[in-house]
Amino acid sequence: MSGPLRIGLAGLGTVGAGVVQILSDHAEKFTMRSGRPVAVTAVCARDRNKDRGVDLSPYRWENDAQALAVSEDIDVFVEMIGGEDGPAYTAVVSALKAGKHVVTANKALLAKHGSELAALAESRNLALNFEAAVAAGIPIVKTLREGLSANEISRVYGILNGTCNHILTDMEASGRSFDVVLREAQELGYAEEDPTFDVGGIDTAHKLALLTSLAFGCAPDFDGVFIEGIEHITALDLAFVEDFGYRIKLLGVARHTSEGIEQRVHPCLVPLNSAIAAVQGVYNSVVTQGDSVGETVLEGQGAGRGPTASAVIADIVDIARGNLMPVFGIPAKDLKPAKRAPMEGHEGAFYVRLSAQDRSGVIAGITSILADEKVSIESMVQHGAGASGMPPGTLPVAIMTHETKEEAMTRVRHRLEEDRDIVEPPRIIRIENL
Amino acid sequence: MSGPLRIGLAGLGTVGAGVVQILSDHAEKFTMRSGRPVAVTAVCARDRNKDRGVDLSPYRWENDAQALAVSEDIDVFVEMIGGEDGPAYTAVVSALKAGKHVVTANKALLAKHGSELAALAESRNLALNFEAAVAAGIPIVKTLREGLSANEISRVYGILNGTCNHILTDMEASGRSFDVVLREAQELGYAEEDPTFDVGGIDTAHKLALLTSLAFGCAPDFDGVFIEGIEHITALDLAFVEDFGYRIKLLGVARHTSEGIEQRVHPCLVPLNSAIAAVQGVYNSVVTQGDSVGETVLEGQGAGRGPTASAVIADIVDIARGNLMPVFGIPAKDLKPAKRAPMEGHEGAFYVRLSAQDRSGVIAGITSILADEKVSIESMVQHGAGASGMPPGTLPVAIMTHETKEEAMTRVRHRLEEDRDIVEPPRIIRIENL
Repeated sequence: MSGPLRIGLAGLGTVGAGVVQILSDHAEKFTMRSGRPVAVTAVCARDRNKDRGVDLSPYRWENDAQALAVSEDIDVFVEMIGGEDGPAYTAVVSALKAGKHVVTANKALLAKHGSELAALAESRNLALNFEAAVAAGIPIVKTLREGLSANEISRVYGILNGTCNHILTDMEASGRSFDVVLREAQELGYAEEDPTFDVGGIDTAHKLALLTSLAFGCAPDFDGVFIEGIEHITALDLAFVEDFGYRIKLLGVARHTSEGIEQRVHPCLVPLNSAIAAVQGVYNSVVTQGDSVGETVLEGQGAGRGPTASAVIADIVDIARGNLMPVFGIPAKDLKPAKRAPMEGHEGAFYVRLSAQDRSGVIAGITSILADEKVSIESMVQHGAGASGMPPGTLPVAIMTHETKEEAMTRVRHRLEEDRDIVEPPRIIRIENL
Repeated sequence: MSGPLRIGLAGLGTVGAGVVQILSDHAEKFTMRSGRPVAVTAVCARDRNKDRGVDLSPYRWENDAQALAVSEDIDVFVEMIGGEDGPAYTAVVSALKAGKHVVTANKALLAKHGSELAALAESRNLALNFEAAVAAGIPIVKTLREGLSANEISRVYGILNGTCNHILTDMEASGRSFDVVLREAQELGYAEEDPTFDVGGIDTAHKLALLTSLAFGCAPDFDGVFIEGIEHITALDLAFVEDFGYRIKLLGVARHTSEGIEQRVHPCLVPLNSAIAAVQGVYNSVVTQGDSVGETVLEGQGAGRGPTASAVIADIVDIARGNLMPVFGIPAKDLKPAKRAPMEGHEGAFYVRLSAQDRSGVIAGITSILADEKVSIESMVQHGAGASGMPPGTLPVAIMTHETKEEAMTRVRHRLEEDRDIVEPPRIIRIENL
């Protein structure tokens, strides 16, 4: 048996404290699983006096993440600080340069600096493991990097943000508005005080950029992700799409197309009978399409203390077992820049919902705009007056289009926005063909 | 870069040929992923002249698996022969003794000889990888052994046999009988000529024994698995349970209980709205309950050339990368014999369907038998005469019980079998509380 694997952990939020707790509660088990003891030796956080519900007295306290990252008494630096730059970035770089393995849950850091950090880690034969950064305890990073290594992946998509999925699930069930549900989620601690990263789709995009890299062997390209959040989803639309046999989910979708790599995060209509539609509340789900294996689905809780700590510890056990993988599945030097498939070229069907003035000729006007732009209508429903959430004097008109180019839909959107018979900005949501 | 990893592959059925094909088609990719070339050097099968749709001329042909297993020009022995003993067992033992890593898809072999072979492999620092043995391309072995290594697992269950799930799905959709659907499945190649292993639940039990070992750290204990197949499931019962809000699936279920390890394979009523009920056709699904991660679900195709080859190659890539794991997640020497929880102690609700003589007093007789044995009835439906598949002059009576002990239900079964008002043996199916 080798000597103990010594862990330095920076960031003692709910997950960090959970990692310390589990490693100490099950020390014997990890020794058995790893072939050597796995022991936290030092920790660091902003406030030493905060009660974290876990006994930190056995561990050396360090005030500074940077100092912890390079300290003599650790072999693995666990980064739970967060943030794409700043102290997290500095500490991870320092740790790798000092010959420490790194485990991180920091999707923003890797979405931005992934290639550079992977190259640094691999040049020194160090691990840079990040299972917890995507979908928490669901082992999707390991699955793409190892379990499906035989496959050419053509598509990976999923529900990657539990906050958004919780909000959409609640809105659909209760008929309440986005603002009301979000506020309640914040009060209950399901949503951050500043919810922009979650509801704006940025968190999903960070995770998608990492999945894209693992799936297609390209460098993480966060800037190449098309992003639209769920802020404009209404209870009205959630109800309307159900009549068409759909449900609305915030998806991250990455595809390998002849035009290049397509990465997009936006609300999607998914068929009610699809597996992804059944994923409710804070659950995450990732679907992968491989040439040999076909479709594989992984589901589980995508956030929270236990699930995230589970992933961090699995990464640590891999290191303790002496197993080292290229960070993104292939050597960092072989990661190609992602050739971006332009979003305008994306083809798909759309749901369009308008608040139309209640007078004759309005529908004819709408349909002629679509016809002009060669967007053909699959079905259209004009609901009666009085639907809640509609401006006074307007009727909701819901349209499902056939497949069309994104650029045609952009022109339709602009014309509808200018149409004086349409009162609010049109609600346009992509339909995902799963 | 290290030298090439040299593969000797025994057994060139559809999966074996698939492995050869994929490794040769994507040789460059595997070199990149593994950090070294991965090359088949020699193959062996019963019939050299059979056309397998893949060019075998680049590889040395060996007539005998045993000779291949120990030959100088291989580093990894891939066993695709099958069978729990005989040539597969002999060749795997020889390969390990000769210092070769082993990759196998052979669930029967490992369910019977798993501990012994794991000990042999680990004593020589060799891999014995078997991802393909359970649920083909779904990386459930890797997930339990590595991805969820932080967790105490309390339960693992799933649909592990695509043939059975295909048959049940088809019977439910078409209303056709087990025999008719099985025969068609055999003609289409979805079921073996001798279907006993599949429909009798033995294949599922082999896989469950391996999952149990990985989940609970005990030696694989195939003999401890309670097994009941799907041969007695009728289209009539599939239709009746739907009225109660259920669907019938063949599940393998392993639980860590206070009485010991419970392992059982049998048809189950699962709620129609559960995730497992939605798994149709040849798909497999495995659900794991861990103390930190909560519930994790993995789904995908559980059989076939591509999915199985995908798993075999992932195991090979792990070896090429130099990564070695304890075969069942903890060192073989630490695997404890499974303490078996006796099946009689199992508690659960039951579906009971009887073919009762159409005369007065019969229902009273049935209900008094259940009352005598303290099995309480949650609901009971007596259908009208003329349901297809019923003996003439009988009426179908369907009962859902409350939770009761297995032993009480055994007494009920015996008394119903002796009851002269009940024409056929009672159909009793366990309800699984998911």
